Amino acid sequence: MSEPSSSPPSRRPIGVFDSGVGGLTVVRAVRRALPGEDVVYLGDTARVPYGSKSPRTVERYSLACQRFLLDRDVKLVLIACNTASATALPALREASPVPVIGAVEPGADSALAATRNKRIGVIGTLATVRSGAYEAAIAARDPSATVTALACPLLVPLAEEGWVDDEIALAVARRYLSTLLARDPAIDTLVLGCTHYPLLAGVLERAARELAGRPVTIVDSASAMAEWARRALDARHENRRGAPGTLACFATDTSRLDELAPRFLGEPLDVFDLVDL
Amino acid sequence: MSEPSSSPPSRRPIGVFDSGVGGLTVVRAVRRALPGEDVVYLGDTARVPYGSKSPRTVERYSLACQRFLLDRDVKLVLIACNTASATALPALREASPVPVIGAVEPGADSALAATRNKRIGVIGTLATVRSGAYEAAIAARDPSATVTALACPLLVPLAEEGWVDDEIALAVARRYLSTLLARDPAIDTLVLGCTHYPLLAGVLERAARELAGRPVTIVDSASAMAEWARRALDARHENRRGAPGTLACFATDTSRLDELAPRFLGEPLDVFDLVDL
Repeated sequence: MSEPSSSPPSRRPIGVFDSGVGGLTVVRAVRRALPGEDVVYLGDTARVPYGSKSPRTVERYSLACQRFLLDRDVKLVLIACNTASATALPALREASPVPVIGAVEPGADSALAATRNKRIGVIGTLATVRSGAYEAAIAARDPSATVTALACPLLVPLAEEGWVDDEIALAVARRYLSTLLARDPAIDTLVLGCTHYPLLAGVLERAARELAGRPVTIVDSASAMAEWARRALDARHENRRGAPGTLACFATDTSRLDELAPRFLGEPLDVFDLVDL
Repeated sequence: MSEPSSSPPSRRPIGVFDSGVGGLTVVRAVRRALPGEDVVYLGDTARVPYGSKSPRTVERYSLACQRFLLDRDVKLVLIACNTASATALPALREASPVPVIGAVEPGADSALAATRNKRIGVIGTLATVRSGAYEAAIAARDPSATVTALACPLLVPLAEEGWVDDEIALAVARRYLSTLLARDPAIDTLVLGCTHYPLLAGVLERAARELAGRPVTIVDSASAMAEWARRALDARHENRRGAPGTLACFATDTSRLDELAPRFLGEPLDVFDLVDL
């Protein structure tokens, strides 16, 4: 659907979707890296979370989200949800005429760039961890790296409750990371494999350091995804420069959006438009 | 759709639905109170939780759940989800040819039967608390009672994680209940306004007692709902006795069902059938 090389930079927006509002951390990174781009964001807040659900359900909902973005003529789709990326990427790519970038491959790049001993920990939702997607993506890049993954179901509700830097958050971080570090005490890099987790980076970093007795590098997918997006647009000569791009946000349910969304986006936010999927 | 008085006790099942598996605590109470009844249960596990979502979305999803049960020819609908009861009961009753029993009115009965000073605390999801449904149901029964309600979003994921009797559960219970008891230090009865919360009754009772400096009575809706169901069937001569009734369970997503469902039902469970709504 897109024209190569000689056509002028497209006015079409970049599409970003997530199960909820956590994906706004990716929008934030995209707007920093590609300030001239228009962005359309969809949060499937009526059906959030995806992370506790089966691959079949996640794939079905993710395809509906992508369809909504494609109907708005996006030139690129970013899956700002690790669960959807981990379980539905092949189906999403097959269904899309434009490039689709997930969270897992960029996150794997970030982890391998950061690790010194190739011992990588990954934390994420139940669905992401069950998928084995990070293990596969890291092994495809460097088969000598070791990946240890753990599902941490309580971290999303903690982040949404805003309990991100207190003794309960620290106790939860300690409980999960002590399990992870018991499985591989040599982990030197921890991938935040869920777009909600960057809000908890502080307690996770502290708990990991205390438990490991040394610093553990924390990485997430957001800035790497923005970099992948920039490269994809450059390759197709579709990136825009100049005037600041617009941001249009859509959601399938509006409850708590006003409260939660700015926390993830890091800037004030205009209204979300409500859509049914 | 049902015939009065002279017809023989109906072979039609009782229908129960919830956003997830927490409603199995209601099924447990129904099977204890009405052992001869067949029960059809639907958990909308693909779209769980409802508690963080808007009334519009909750009503839409609840109507789809009830439609599924009515299509299976149930003689009675139990809404084993406080959020759906609190926000969608009028729409559900209007759409149903058979009686519909929510969780809130029976819970209000239980609270008023238990309190001695008419100072009642209610904890539940964000949607349940925002609805004001418990305040309204209790005021309708006894205008002199005082109700103080608080949303506790972290309790459902804690119950699902199985962290129900440890220091993290206790710290979370303390944080919420200290807020509640600061608003009304005289509360003598605490309504668990969410079908997940009975799993946390132990830490909630302990935290309430420590914070109040005296025992606080914990009540939930499950056994009161079963009693309402018995009366509704008696009134219509539709209750069955004799051979133990059957239980058929349906869900919209199967992830974690094997692990979670027996915890709430309190007995081993045959397979869930997967349905799309």
